[in-house]
Amino acid sequence: MNLWFSELHTKGSGLVLKVKKYLYSGNSPYQKIDIFESEDYGKVLVLDGLVMTTERDEFIYHEMLTHPAMRIHPNPQSILIIGGGDGGTAREALRYSEVKRAVLVEIDEMVVELSKKYLGEISSAYNDPRLEVVIRDGIEFVKNCNERFDVIFLDTSDPVGPAEALYRKDFYQSLKKCLKKNGIISAQTESPWVQKETVKKLYREIKDIFNDKIIYLAHIPTYPGGIWSFMLLGEKIELYDIKRPIPGKTKYYNDEIHRSMTALPEYFKHEIAE
Amino acid sequence: MNLWFSELHTKGSGLVLKVKKYLYSGNSPYQKIDIFESEDYGKVLVLDGLVMTTERDEFIYHEMLTHPAMRIHPNPQSILIIGGGDGGTAREALRYSEVKRAVLVEIDEMVVELSKKYLGEISSAYNDPRLEVVIRDGIEFVKNCNERFDVIFLDTSDPVGPAEALYRKDFYQSLKKCLKKNGIISAQTESPWVQKETVKKLYREIKDIFNDKIIYLAHIPTYPGGIWSFMLLGEKIELYDIKRPIPGKTKYYNDEIHRSMTALPEYFKHEIAE
Repeated sequence: MNLWFSELHTKGSGLVLKVKKYLYSGNSPYQKIDIFESEDYGKVLVLDGLVMTTERDEFIYHEMLTHPAMRIHPNPQSILIIGGGDGGTAREALRYSEVKRAVLVEIDEMVVELSKKYLGEISSAYNDPRLEVVIRDGIEFVKNCNERFDVIFLDTSDPVGPAEALYRKDFYQSLKKCLKKNGIISAQTESPWVQKETVKKLYREIKDIFNDKIIYLAHIPTYPGGIWSFMLLGEKIELYDIKRPIPGKTKYYNDEIHRSMTALPEYFKHEIAE
Repeated sequence: MNLWFSELHTKGSGLVLKVKKYLYSGNSPYQKIDIFESEDYGKVLVLDGLVMTTERDEFIYHEMLTHPAMRIHPNPQSILIIGGGDGGTAREALRYSEVKRAVLVEIDEMVVELSKKYLGEISSAYNDPRLEVVIRDGIEFVKNCNERFDVIFLDTSDPVGPAEALYRKDFYQSLKKCLKKNGIISAQTESPWVQKETVKKLYREIKDIFNDKIIYLAHIPTYPGGIWSFMLLGEKIELYDIKRPIPGKTKYYNDEIHRSMTALPEYFKHEIAE
């Protein structure tokens, strides 16, 4: 059988992936979850019809969300991950031996369980004793959190449905209260090519909350437009003061990428007005 | 009618574009040519089933192929373009008033004529009196050329069929003889994500011919993998010694992109061994 998955990134453009074997299709209380083995991108996790991660290119997203923040924070002992149920962000962040405690807050337990079952290489951090998994709405967790963290990762899904609240001012205001002095938030912030309006809107929302806001980009083949944006947020972020080496090998991120990732194309640069 | 164009970038992954209106479909002596108006990417030029250029994202490819070389050459008075029948490379290069003479060598006259007819914004340089169009095989032209140029652009199609010879040592050896002292070749060199082997092979072919070889990348949504590689070749290339401002506005390329475009991801960096 010739089976193809397709994801439209705009009304009239999208990605197609050939399906080798369907592994799982079901509904959690929050979303539709599909996992298939693709011809060229390994196993693919799809939430509500959108590719969340593929075994072949997940390293780009997870490395780029984590390593910049982890290398410039003075001493990242405690980390919080909002979302990130596939485990990839935890895997990368926990490579740093400085981390004593990590909390991953995922709303959908089924994403965690299915990632453990089907995406072993991405979800390997679930075996790390430093990682605590909390199954809860990230917004509720943040609102009621008494703990403060050194680095917070926002590894959230697209701003549709319940995740929309994760792109609003009040969420970031609560989040700031969970951040230690010198803390850094590292957030995935959508495609500057396909979702430019979302990035602009988010930037306006958080603009007055954080003193330092650094936008950077990475190339991710299976994400809309093939290019993705991230933001580092905090009171004082010294992007070029790298405090520690990369622990082991990476496949995308390196020192030159770190130094060059904030170069924004003209079509995007002027949209993000200070 | 719900009409979709698809291009497979690997056996099991690819791009789909919704077709609003079919404008042209025909065969030249060299290739199949299709032009359609897409839902989201403006008009699209397709050669032998592969997207060559779209009105919406062509600026990235054409700016990135031309501006780096044009800004670092001491005095780019004469330029040669091999391929580039859509006219986009000529349009960008001719923005520099230093250029006194440009020769565009395109094998397929139909690409030139159809671009003039359907892709007016891309092909506008055909009205520039400094531009001479030569309808001829680029390989033959280069082999028999008595003239020398300051900057040579290789705006060629993928290394399948006749274009394969454009990726071989002897072509680059001939090309070097068309280059003035201090001359720079700027070449498109395929996707580092999807055609890594092609880039590696090409690099090995040209390695001993040119003293300086600089690889750089740009993000192009409709090209395979969404990321594209380019090479600057010459005897002495001073990449950071920018000689002149960008003439007017660009939409992708800028000074920060110039300084950061040579940062290569780990998965590619170590493949291109010196």
